[in-house]
Amino acid sequence: MSLLIVGTVAFDTIETPFGKADMVVGGSGQYAAYAASYFTNDINLVSIVGDDFPKAELAELNKRGVKTDGIKVVEGGKSFYWAGKYHDNMNDRDTLVTDLNVLADFDPVLPEDYKQSEYIMLGNLTPDIQISVINQLEVKPKLVMLDTMNLWIDIAREPLLKAISMCDVLSINDEEARMLSGEHSIVQAAAKILELGPKYLIIKKGEHGALLFDNDNVFFAPAMPLQRVTDPTGAGDCFAGGFLGYIAKTGDISFDNMKRALVYGAAMASFVVEDFSNHKIKSVTQSDIKERIVRFVQLSQFTI
Amino acid sequence: MSLLIVGTVAFDTIETPFGKADMVVGGSGQYAAYAASYFTNDINLVSIVGDDFPKAELAELNKRGVKTDGIKVVEGGKSFYWAGKYHDNMNDRDTLVTDLNVLADFDPVLPEDYKQSEYIMLGNLTPDIQISVINQLEVKPKLVMLDTMNLWIDIAREPLLKAISMCDVLSINDEEARMLSGEHSIVQAAAKILELGPKYLIIKKGEHGALLFDNDNVFFAPAMPLQRVTDPTGAGDCFAGGFLGYIAKTGDISFDNMKRALVYGAAMASFVVEDFSNHKIKSVTQSDIKERIVRFVQLSQFTI
Repeated sequence: MSLLIVGTVAFDTIETPFGKADMVVGGSGQYAAYAASYFTNDINLVSIVGDDFPKAELAELNKRGVKTDGIKVVEGGKSFYWAGKYHDNMNDRDTLVTDLNVLADFDPVLPEDYKQSEYIMLGNLTPDIQISVINQLEVKPKLVMLDTMNLWIDIAREPLLKAISMCDVLSINDEEARMLSGEHSIVQAAAKILELGPKYLIIKKGEHGALLFDNDNVFFAPAMPLQRVTDPTGAGDCFAGGFLGYIAKTGDISFDNMKRALVYGAAMASFVVEDFSNHKIKSVTQSDIKERIVRFVQLSQFTI
Repeated sequence: MSLLIVGTVAFDTIETPFGKADMVVGGSGQYAAYAASYFTNDINLVSIVGDDFPKAELAELNKRGVKTDGIKVVEGGKSFYWAGKYHDNMNDRDTLVTDLNVLADFDPVLPEDYKQSEYIMLGNLTPDIQISVINQLEVKPKLVMLDTMNLWIDIAREPLLKAISMCDVLSINDEEARMLSGEHSIVQAAAKILELGPKYLIIKKGEHGALLFDNDNVFFAPAMPLQRVTDPTGAGDCFAGGFLGYIAKTGDISFDNMKRALVYGAAMASFVVEDFSNHKIKSVTQSDIKERIVRFVQLSQFTI
């Protein structure tokens, strides 16, 4: 079933204790699309790039069932660029450069055949862009998932609250959940955030896994402990892409199926961090995913 | 089956964002014994207190199957006293007072009928005390579990390495695992630490759960997300007491049973933090534990 992903397609320069990757392909939309492409080949990607973005990268996405008609290419423009350096703990990072470039004028217009998409992933963009995308949909989607960040909580709370009220699944990290709710306890934060409208809330805790809440249930998916995390960039996006890709594949939005989807999301996140940029998330196989899921079962399942 | 617990029995003054508890009962041995007493009533507690320690508290432990003959009462002495203040995040804390008092001269002598104990929990004390206890055992125990802390890694690494080589299960937190191994990756840290001798390694991550490693397997038990953590003191000790109490009850040291034991440990930890001191861990019922275990199943179990 069709999955619409709105997010960045961009260049990153990343430095971690394990090396440096210069001007490599990045962006939340791109990561999510790769992760989701292992579950469905009916993906509609919406983004904006400059004419510096390699056409071969878009062709690679097309080969995997990702339509890129919704990616506006600005002639003479430069793609969004982010440079960052991770600390030794791999959780904290310093942003060295943020060049919005063509992203500064991003005002997505959905191609006609995108407007009936059933599952919607609104990557971390301004709340106004997220709202505009929802308003362009011609058929009520089965599930709208929304990602955001501390910046919008800080400087655009009102439009963000409106965007949140229009989504079914909000996906944020623990620090953002505390910031948004004013509650320190994650359980109390979740209860307050669910009052804002979304039926489901995913709270991401990086290497400490992720929680899924609705009003009656809570589920926890651990992160896979890895020999080495080479580059954490894209983990949250591949998590979201794997999650919603699995939901789109199964067409089942029960809490029980969302549990499975969360584990598939955690699996996709556990791949992307094993190499810089999209190197690993481009090259996993269905059998790699199956094996990784078996490891998640061994990691977290017990009998009483 | 018999469980020997060596640890502190003491007074704490605790301040958290939710209140203050002055000169309340604390200590790792005491917490672990309460947690374990829900699984076995054959517990041998070894510690040292001053004559200021209330006899009613020891009588209460006795009622639950905890022998206290191994608790030396020093006439005219004062019990170990710790005062601390937790930060708003409830993970970090400042130590305000550490009065070793009678603990400074603690040199435990096991009563005769303790020396055949089958399961041994060596709470966080100097490595020399831990080694001395192991050497007093007359029958090879089925499982020796050892807790330690950053201080001993720092100032007593050699005796600590000896103590670690004598235990079957080492229980430390993630920061200590990194310190002890010199590895940042938890997986690599675990591999290095298992080379030091123990067959099993538990890495505690506080509110982020706990990992159990052996050379072939890894299992993760989440912490229960709670409405409110009132006082984190004793969480690690109740976790260990619940874990080893369950092992002692079942007499099964397979990895599969240790998974269950880890979940029972996490359950006992989730109780103690709901109130100051031992108030809550003294007052739970078997049915509370059953209910909490059901919540852990709901929290972490999925079908693929």
